[in-house]
Amino acid sequence: MKRKGTLFVVCGPSGVGKGTVCKELLKVKPEIGLSISATTRERRKGETEGVSYYFIDRNEFEDMIESDELLEYAEVYGNLYGTPKKYVLEQLNKGYDIILEIDTQGAMQIKEKYPKGVFVFLLPPSMEELRNRIVTRGRDSKDNIEKRLKCANEEIDFISEYDYYIINDDLTGAVNSLVSIIEAERCKVKNDICKLIKMYKEEI
Amino acid sequence: MKRKGTLFVVCGPSGVGKGTVCKELLKVKPEIGLSISATTRERRKGETEGVSYYFIDRNEFEDMIESDELLEYAEVYGNLYGTPKKYVLEQLNKGYDIILEIDTQGAMQIKEKYPKGVFVFLLPPSMEELRNRIVTRGRDSKDNIEKRLKCANEEIDFISEYDYYIINDDLTGAVNSLVSIIEAERCKVKNDICKLIKMYKEEI
Repeated sequence: MKRKGTLFVVCGPSGVGKGTVCKELLKVKPEIGLSISATTRERRKGETEGVSYYFIDRNEFEDMIESDELLEYAEVYGNLYGTPKKYVLEQLNKGYDIILEIDTQGAMQIKEKYPKGVFVFLLPPSMEELRNRIVTRGRDSKDNIEKRLKCANEEIDFISEYDYYIINDDLTGAVNSLVSIIEAERCKVKNDICKLIKMYKEEI
Repeated sequence: MKRKGTLFVVCGPSGVGKGTVCKELLKVKPEIGLSISATTRERRKGETEGVSYYFIDRNEFEDMIESDELLEYAEVYGNLYGTPKKYVLEQLNKGYDIILEIDTQGAMQIKEKYPKGVFVFLLPPSMEELRNRIVTRGRDSKDNIEKRLKCANEEIDFISEYDYYIINDDLTGAVNSLVSIIEAERCKVKNDICKLIKMYKEEI
Protein backbone atom coordinates (compact mmCIF):
# COMPACT_ATOMS: atom_id res chain seq x y z
CA MET A 1 0.00 0.00 0.00
CA LYS A 2 1.48 3.32 -1.11
CA ARG A 3 1.89 5.89 1.62
CA LYS A 4 -0.38 8.92 1.30
CA GLY A 5 1.05 12.41 1.42
CA THR A 6 0.61 14.58 4.50
CA LEU A 7 -1.59 17.66 4.51
CA PHE A 8 0.09 20.52 6.39
CA VAL A 9 -2.35 23.26 7.36
CA VAL A 10 -0.72 26.59 8.21
CA CYS A 11 -3.04 28.87 10.07
CA GLY A 12 -2.86 32.00 12.19
CA PRO A 13 -4.38 35.43 12.65
CA SER A 14 -4.66 37.90 9.82
CA GLY A 15 -1.41 39.85 9.43
CA VAL A 16 0.86 37.27 11.08
CA GLY A 17 2.69 36.47 7.84
CA LYS A 18 1.27 33.08 6.78
CA GLY A 19 1.65 33.88 3.07
CA THR A 20 5.28 34.96 3.34
CA VAL A 21 6.28 31.95 5.44
CA CYS A 22 4.63 29.50 3.02
CA LYS A 23 6.19 31.21 -0.01
CA GLU A 24 9.65 30.95 1.54
CA LEU A 25 9.01 27.35 2.56
CA LEU A 26 8.32 26.36 -1.04
CA LYS A 27 11.73 27.71 -2.06
CA VAL A 28 13.39 25.35 0.45
CA LYS A 29 11.01 22.42 -0.09
CA PRO A 30 9.95 22.65 -3.73
CA GLU A 31 8.63 19.06 -3.62
CA ILE A 32 5.69 20.22 -1.52
CA GLY A 33 2.51 21.15 -3.37
CA LEU A 34 0.73 24.37 -2.48
CA SER A 35 -3.02 24.32 -2.44
CA ILE A 36 -4.43 27.46 -4.08
CA SER A 37 -7.67 28.78 -2.60
CA ALA A 38 -10.63 30.15 -4.51
CA THR A 39 -11.99 33.51 -3.40
CA THR A 40 -14.62 36.07 -4.30
CA ARG A 41 -12.57 38.95 -2.94
CA GLU A 42 -11.07 41.45 -5.31
CA ARG A 43 -7.63 40.85 -6.66
CA ARG A 44 -4.99 43.02 -4.98
CA LYS A 45 -2.08 44.63 -6.77
CA GLY A 46 0.65 42.08 -7.38
CA GLU A 47 -1.66 39.05 -7.06
CA THR A 48 -1.84 36.56 -9.92
CA GLU A 49 -4.81 34.39 -10.95
CA GLY A 50 -4.10 30.72 -10.16
CA VAL A 51 -1.00 31.59 -8.13
CA SER A 52 -2.27 33.84 -5.34
CA TYR A 53 -5.85 32.63 -5.62
CA TYR A 54 -8.43 31.51 -8.12
CA PHE A 55 -10.48 34.69 -8.36
CA ILE A 56 -14.10 33.75 -9.05
CA ASP A 57 -17.45 35.49 -8.62
CA ARG A 58 -20.02 34.70 -5.95
CA ASN A 59 -22.21 32.66 -8.34
CA GLU A 60 -19.34 30.41 -9.36
CA PHE A 61 -18.37 30.00 -5.71
CA GLU A 62 -21.91 29.02 -4.73
CA ASP A 63 -21.96 26.46 -7.55
CA MET A 64 -18.79 24.89 -6.11
CA ILE A 65 -20.39 24.69 -2.66
CA GLU A 66 -23.52 23.16 -4.20
CA SER A 67 -21.58 20.46 -6.05
CA ASP A 68 -19.38 19.66 -3.03
CA GLU A 69 -16.17 20.71 -4.74
CA LEU A 70 -14.71 22.47 -1.67
CA LEU A 71 -12.80 20.93 1.21
CA GLU A 72 -13.78 23.94 3.34
CA TYR A 73 -15.05 27.43 2.83
CA ALA A 74 -15.67 30.48 4.96
CA GLU A 75 -16.87 34.04 4.70
CA VAL A 76 -14.25 36.44 6.05
CA TYR A 77 -14.90 40.18 6.12
CA GLY A 78 -17.66 39.77 3.52
CA ASN A 79 -15.63 37.66 1.08
CA LEU A 80 -15.86 33.94 0.42
CA TYR A 81 -12.69 31.81 0.55
CA GLY A 82 -12.50 28.08 -0.09
CA THR A 83 -10.20 25.16 -0.83
CA PRO A 84 -10.92 23.24 -4.04
CA LYS A 85 -10.99 19.58 -3.07
CA LYS A 86 -9.77 17.96 -6.27
CA TYR A 87 -6.12 19.06 -6.35
CA VAL A 88 -5.49 18.40 -2.64
CA LEU A 89 -6.94 14.88 -2.58
CA GLU A 90 -5.31 13.88 -5.87
CA GLN A 91 -1.85 14.94 -4.69
CA LEU A 92 -2.23 13.29 -1.26
CA ASN A 93 -3.34 10.05 -2.91
CA LYS A 94 -0.28 10.16 -5.15
CA GLY A 95 1.86 10.37 -1.99
CA TYR A 96 2.82 14.06 -2.25
CA ASP A 97 2.78 16.38 0.75
CA ILE A 98 0.59 19.45 0.43
CA ILE A 99 0.65 22.75 2.27
CA LEU A 100 -2.44 24.82 2.80
CA GLU A 101 -2.39 28.38 4.09
CA ILE A 102 -5.74 29.14 5.59
CA ASP A 103 -7.76 31.21 8.07
CA THR A 104 -8.83 29.65 11.37
CA GLN A 105 -12.48 29.04 10.41
CA GLY A 106 -11.28 26.99 7.44
CA ALA A 107 -8.67 25.15 9.47
CA MET A 108 -11.26 23.85 11.91
CA GLN A 109 -13.45 22.58 9.05
CA ILE A 110 -10.46 20.77 7.58
CA LYS A 111 -9.63 19.30 10.97
CA GLU A 112 -13.14 17.85 11.14
CA LYS A 113 -13.04 16.41 7.62
CA TYR A 114 -9.37 15.44 7.53
CA PRO A 115 -8.11 14.92 11.11
CA LYS A 116 -4.94 13.26 9.79
CA GLY A 117 -3.76 16.70 8.68
CA VAL A 118 -0.95 18.39 10.60
CA PHE A 119 -2.12 21.72 12.00
CA VAL A 120 0.40 24.51 12.53
CA PHE A 121 -0.53 27.83 14.16
CA LEU A 122 1.61 30.83 13.33
CA LEU A 123 1.80 33.43 16.11
CA PRO A 124 3.05 37.01 16.20
CA PRO A 125 5.81 37.80 18.72
CA SER A 126 3.12 39.70 20.68
CA MET A 127 -0.35 41.15 20.12
CA GLU A 128 1.22 44.60 20.05
CA GLU A 129 3.53 43.50 17.23
CA LEU A 130 0.54 42.06 15.32
CA ARG A 131 -1.15 45.46 15.55
CA ASN A 132 2.03 47.11 14.20
CA ARG A 133 2.16 44.72 11.26
CA ILE A 134 -1.48 45.25 10.31
CA VAL A 135 -1.09 49.03 10.62
CA THR A 136 2.17 49.03 8.63
CA ARG A 137 0.83 47.07 5.67
CA GLY A 138 -1.74 49.88 5.40
CA ARG A 139 -4.59 47.88 3.88
CA ASP A 140 -7.12 48.31 6.70
CA SER A 141 -9.28 51.07 8.12
CA LYS A 142 -9.04 51.80 11.84
CA ASP A 143 -12.27 49.83 12.40
CA ASN A 144 -10.96 46.88 10.42
CA ILE A 145 -7.73 46.84 12.41
CA GLU A 146 -9.69 46.56 15.65
CA LYS A 147 -11.87 43.84 14.11
CA ARG A 148 -8.80 41.86 13.04
CA LEU A 149 -7.20 42.15 16.47
CA LYS A 150 -10.39 41.05 18.20
CA CYS A 151 -10.54 38.05 15.86
CA ALA A 152 -6.87 37.22 16.49
CA ASN A 153 -7.54 37.25 20.20
CA GLU A 154 -10.47 34.84 19.81
CA GLU A 155 -8.50 32.60 17.47
CA ILE A 156 -5.75 32.10 20.03
CA ASP A 157 -8.37 30.58 22.37
CA PHE A 158 -8.44 27.60 19.99
CA ILE A 159 -4.70 27.05 19.93
CA SER A 160 -5.02 23.72 21.72
CA GLU A 161 -6.69 22.37 18.55
CA TYR A 162 -3.37 22.69 16.73
CA ASP A 163 -0.43 20.28 16.73
CA TYR A 164 2.36 22.82 16.46
CA TYR A 165 2.95 26.54 16.96
CA ILE A 166 5.58 28.79 15.47
CA ILE A 167 6.29 32.33 16.69
CA ASN A 168 6.99 34.36 13.57
CA ASP A 169 9.53 36.77 15.00
CA ASP A 170 11.99 36.30 12.20
CA LEU A 171 11.19 34.84 8.82
CA THR A 172 14.17 32.47 8.53
CA GLY A 173 13.55 31.05 11.99
CA ALA A 174 9.87 30.54 11.26
CA VAL A 175 10.60 28.80 7.94
CA ASN A 176 13.24 26.58 9.59
CA SER A 177 10.74 25.54 12.25
CA LEU A 178 8.19 24.67 9.57
CA VAL A 179 10.83 22.64 7.70
CA SER A 180 11.65 20.75 10.92
CA ILE A 181 7.97 19.99 11.49
CA ILE A 182 7.64 18.61 7.96
CA GLU A 183 10.81 16.54 8.26
CA ALA A 184 9.80 15.20 11.67
CA GLU A 185 6.34 14.23 10.41
CA ARG A 186 8.04 12.24 7.66
CA CYS A 187 9.82 10.26 10.42
CA LYS A 188 6.62 9.35 12.30
CA VAL A 189 6.41 5.59 12.81
CA LYS A 190 2.60 5.54 12.70
CA ASN A 191 2.58 6.90 9.14
CA ASP A 192 4.89 4.18 7.82
CA ILE A 193 4.27 1.09 9.87
CA CYS A 194 3.36 -1.07 6.84
CA LYS A 195 6.39 0.07 4.87
CA LEU A 196 8.70 -0.66 7.82
CA ILE A 197 7.35 -4.15 8.43
CA LYS A 198 7.69 -4.85 4.72
CA MET A 199 11.26 -3.51 4.61
CA TYR A 200 12.65 -5.32 7.63
CA LYS A 201 10.49 -8.34 8.27
CA GLU A 202 9.94 -9.69 4.79
CA GLU A 203 13.57 -9.83 3.78
CA ILE A 204 14.39 -12.39 6.45
CA MET B 1 4.90 27.12 35.63
CA LYS B 2 8.28 26.51 34.06
CA ARG B 3 8.29 24.16 31.11
CA LYS B 4 10.03 20.85 31.73
CA GLY B 5 12.66 19.63 29.33
CA THR B 6 11.94 16.80 26.91
CA LEU B 7 13.52 13.38 27.24
CA PHE B 8 14.58 12.03 23.84
CA VAL B 9 15.23 8.30 23.88
CA VAL B 10 17.29 7.02 20.96
CA CYS B 11 17.04 3.30 20.55
CA GLY B 12 17.76 0.69 17.91
CA PRO B 13 19.44 -2.65 17.37
CA SER B 14 23.03 -3.27 18.37
CA GLY B 15 25.38 -2.13 15.60
CA VAL B 16 23.01 0.39 14.00
CA GLY B 17 25.12 3.39 15.03
CA LYS B 18 23.19 4.92 17.96
CA GLY B 19 26.39 6.11 19.67
CA THR B 20 27.79 7.81 16.58
CA VAL B 21 24.51 9.56 15.76
CA CYS B 22 24.13 10.87 19.33
CA LYS B 23 27.74 12.03 19.44
CA GLU B 24 27.29 13.99 16.20
CA LEU B 25 23.97 15.38 17.42
CA LEU B 26 25.63 16.91 20.47
CA LYS B 27 28.05 18.80 18.21
CA VAL B 28 25.08 20.44 16.45
CA LYS B 29 22.89 20.83 19.54
CA PRO B 30 25.32 21.35 22.43
CA GLU B 31 22.48 22.63 24.64
CA ILE B 32 21.15 19.08 24.95
CA GLY B 33 22.30 17.04 27.90
CA LEU B 34 23.49 13.48 27.36
CA SER B 35 22.56 10.92 29.95
CA ILE B 36 25.50 8.64 30.71
CA SER B 37 24.64 5.04 31.54
CA ALA B 38 26.21 2.91 34.22
CA THR B 39 27.43 -0.52 33.20
CA THR B 40 29.17 -3.57 34.57
CA ARG B 41 30.67 -4.50 31.21
CA GLU B 42 34.38 -4.14 30.63
CA ARG B 43 35.72 -0.88 29.31
CA ARG B 44 36.64 -1.07 25.63
CA LYS B 45 39.65 0.61 24.07
CA GLY B 46 38.97 4.31 23.57
CA GLU B 47 36.16 4.48 26.12
CA THR B 48 36.38 6.99 28.96
CA GLU B 49 34.91 6.73 32.48
CA GLY B 50 32.02 9.19 32.91
CA VAL B 51 31.93 9.97 29.19
CA SER B 52 31.26 6.64 27.50
CA TYR B 53 29.78 5.04 30.65
CA TYR B 54 30.16 4.94 34.38
CA PHE B 55 32.01 1.65 34.72
CA ILE B 56 31.01 0.03 38.00
CA ASP B 57 31.11 -3.49 39.38
CA ARG B 58 28.15 -5.79 39.85
CA ASN B 59 27.91 -5.10 43.60
CA GLU B 60 27.73 -1.35 43.10
CA PHE B 61 25.14 -1.83 40.34
CA GLU B 62 22.98 -4.03 42.57
CA ASP B 63 23.16 -1.39 45.31
CA MET B 64 21.82 1.20 42.85
CA ILE B 65 18.93 -1.11 41.92
CA GLU B 66 18.23 -1.70 45.61
CA SER B 67 18.08 2.00 46.44
CA ASP B 68 15.95 2.85 43.36
CA GLU B 69 18.58 5.05 41.80
CA LEU B 70 18.03 3.78 38.25
CA LEU B 71 15.43 4.93 35.75
CA GLU B 72 15.81 1.58 33.98
CA TYR B 73 18.24 -1.26 33.83
CA ALA B 74 18.73 -4.37 31.79
CA GLU B 75 21.03 -7.31 31.38
CA VAL B 76 22.36 -7.53 27.82
CA TYR B 77 24.72 -10.31 26.80
CA GLY B 78 25.59 -10.94 30.45
CA ASN B 79 26.32 -7.33 31.36
CA LEU B 80 24.18 -4.91 33.35
CA TYR B 81 23.38 -1.49 31.91
CA GLY B 82 21.30 1.22 33.60
CA THR B 83 20.35 4.89 33.60
CA PRO B 84 21.08 6.81 36.80
CA LYS B 85 17.87 8.66 37.65
CA LYS B 86 19.27 11.73 39.40
CA TYR B 87 20.93 13.57 36.51
CA VAL B 88 18.06 12.98 34.06
CA LEU B 89 15.27 14.15 36.35
CA GLU B 90 17.24 17.15 37.62
CA GLN B 91 17.95 18.41 34.11
CA LEU B 92 14.37 17.86 32.91
CA ASN B 93 13.03 19.74 35.92
CA LYS B 94 15.35 22.63 35.12
CA GLY B 95 13.83 22.76 31.63
CA TYR B 96 16.74 21.22 29.72
CA ASP B 97 16.28 18.60 27.03
CA ILE B 98 18.07 15.32 27.56
CA ILE B 99 19.07 12.61 25.13
CA LEU B 100 19.41 9.01 26.15
CA GLU B 101 20.98 6.35 23.94
CA ILE B 102 19.68 3.01 25.05
CA ASP B 103 18.91 -0.58 24.13
CA THR B 104 15.34 -1.62 23.44
CA GLN B 105 14.73 -3.38 26.78
CA GLY B 106 15.64 -0.16 28.58
CA ALA B 107 13.60 2.00 26.24
CA MET B 108 10.43 0.08 27.01
CA GLN B 109 11.01 0.45 30.77
CA ILE B 110 11.49 4.21 30.31
CA LYS B 111 8.32 4.38 28.22
CA GLU B 112 6.42 2.81 31.08
CA LYS B 113 7.88 5.12 33.73
CA TYR B 114 8.13 8.26 31.62
CA PRO B 115 5.59 8.08 28.77
CA LYS B 116 6.08 11.79 27.99
CA GLY B 117 9.49 10.90 26.55
CA VAL B 118 9.98 11.03 22.80
CA PHE B 119 11.02 7.63 21.47
CA VAL B 120 13.15 7.41 18.35
CA PHE B 121 14.08 4.11 16.71
CA LEU B 122 17.21 4.03 14.59
CA LEU B 123 17.13 1.49 11.76
CA PRO B 124 19.80 0.09 9.46
CA PRO B 125 19.25 0.53 5.70
CA SER B 126 18.58 -3.24 5.63
CA MET B 127 19.15 -6.32 7.80
CA GLU B 128 21.92 -7.34 5.42
CA GLU B 129 23.67 -4.00 6.01
CA LEU B 130 23.29 -4.44 9.79
CA ARG B 131 25.07 -7.78 9.50
CA ASN B 132 27.87 -6.11 7.49
CA ARG B 133 28.29 -3.41 10.14
CA ILE B 134 28.45 -5.88 13.01
CA VAL B 135 30.91 -8.08 11.09
CA THR B 136 33.05 -5.08 10.06
CA ARG B 137 33.44 -3.67 13.56
CA GLY B 138 34.96 -7.05 14.42
CA ARG B 139 33.96 -7.20 18.07
CA ASP B 140 31.74 -10.26 17.93
CA SER B 141 32.16 -13.99 17.48
CA LYS B 142 30.13 -15.70 14.77
CA ASP B 143 27.66 -16.90 17.42
CA ASN B 144 27.31 -13.42 18.86
CA ILE B 145 26.65 -11.95 15.43
CA GLU B 146 23.77 -14.36 14.92
CA LYS B 147 22.47 -13.58 18.41
CA ARG B 148 22.56 -9.84 17.71
CA LEU B 149 20.76 -10.23 14.39
CA LYS B 150 18.08 -12.40 15.96
CA CYS B 151 17.59 -9.74 18.65
CA ALA B 152 17.45 -6.96 16.05
CA ASN B 153 14.76 -8.87 14.24
CA GLU B 154 12.70 -9.23 17.42
CA GLU B 155 13.23 -5.58 18.36
CA ILE B 156 11.76 -4.38 15.08
CA ASP B 157 8.50 -6.12 16.05
CA PHE B 158 8.08 -3.42 18.69
CA ILE B 159 8.60 -0.49 16.35
CA SER B 160 5.00 0.67 16.75
CA GLU B 161 5.88 1.57 20.36
CA TYR B 162 8.14 4.36 19.06
CA ASP B 163 7.17 7.86 17.96
CA TYR B 164 9.75 8.31 15.21
CA TYR B 165 12.08 6.20 13.09
CA ILE B 166 15.27 7.20 11.32
CA ILE B 167 17.00 5.03 8.74
CA ASN B 168 20.72 5.44 9.37
CA ASP B 169 21.96 5.12 5.80
CA ASP B 170 24.14 8.20 6.00
CA LEU B 171 25.29 9.84 9.19
CA THR B 172 24.57 13.46 8.22
CA GLY B 173 21.07 12.60 7.06
CA ALA B 174 20.35 10.67 10.26
CA VAL B 175 21.63 13.51 12.46
CA ASN B 176 19.58 16.06 10.48
CA SER B 177 16.46 13.97 10.97
CA LEU B 178 17.12 13.80 14.70
CA VAL B 179 17.62 17.58 14.82
CA SER B 180 14.30 18.08 13.00
CA ILE B 181 12.53 15.80 15.47
CA ILE B 182 13.95 17.78 18.40
CA GLU B 183 13.06 21.13 16.82
CA ALA B 184 9.55 19.96 15.95
CA GLU B 185 8.95 18.66 19.47
CA ARG B 186 9.88 22.11 20.75
CA CYS B 187 7.05 23.52 18.59
CA LYS B 188 4.38 21.16 19.99
CA VAL B 189 1.39 23.15 21.28
CA LYS B 190 0.55 20.60 23.97
CA ASN B 191 3.94 21.10 25.66
CA ASP B 192 3.53 24.88 25.92
CA ILE B 193 -0.15 25.59 26.28
CA CYS B 194 0.25 27.46 29.61
CA LYS B 195 3.10 29.58 28.28
CA LEU B 196 1.11 30.49 25.16
CA ILE B 197 -2.02 31.49 27.05
CA LYS B 198 0.15 33.58 29.37
CA MET B 199 1.95 35.24 26.45
CA TYR B 200 -1.03 36.16 24.34
CA LYS B 201 -4.06 36.29 26.59
CA GLU B 202 -2.72 38.08 29.63
CA GLU B 203 -1.29 41.05 27.79
CA ILE B 204 -4.70 42.16 26.54
